[in-house]
Amino acid sequence: MIANTPNPPYYAVIFSSIRTEIEEDYHLMAKKMVEMAQKQEGFLGHESAREGLGITVSYWKNTEAIKQWKMNAAHLFAQQMGKEKWYAAYKTRICLVERDYGFENIT
Amino acid sequence: MIANTPNPPYYAVIFSSIRTEIEEDYHLMAKKMVEMAQKQEGFLGHESAREGLGITVSYWKNTEAIKQWKMNAAHLFAQQMGKEKWYAAYKTRICLVERDYGFENIT
Repeated sequence: MIANTPNPPYYAVIFSSIRTEIEEDYHLMAKKMVEMAQKQEGFLGHESAREGLGITVSYWKNTEAIKQWKMNAAHLFAQQMGKEKWYAAYKTRICLVERDYGFENIT
Repeated sequence: MIANTPNPPYYAVIFSSIRTEIEEDYHLMAKKMVEMAQKQEGFLGHESAREGLGITVSYWKNTEAIKQWKMNAAHLFAQQMGKEKWYAAYKTRICLVERDYGFENIT
């Protein structure tokens, strides 16, 4: 569930959001967008959690891959639906991952 | 709940984690660490959600501020307890936020 990303540098897109109460099509669309993103050139992985606030982080090889995904026709439609129906507020942050380190408890 | 960060560039630390089943002291320590981080020089905000996977993003003015917080004595103790008790796995990613944009539905 923690994305298995390559050694830095790579990119992260942090999408933080507050949902409206409109459920219509949201989960179906969210699932479809993950499936489509996974097929994009340069996609490296994603992590997601919602607890009131939702945080989805997708990881990408470079800014060109992020730009291509942002302009994907089906994704543009989902972004528009997001503004009109599903999100009360969101913030997107495009980030260069400079360094990372991890821990796995194998005891 | 979405962190009100300044204009980029600034830094994000993405902390993705899987918890163990050990609850002892975890929530108390997590709350204390947020309170302490908020008092650190260069702290800009934080966002957090857990849904199986936990994602906590803290925002910082620069890498020096991140380094200072990483070396904070109480935080070092919490990090050690995290490895020994609370986390089955985690990954920390240090990121330069190059650009951001947002949306707020005010209708």
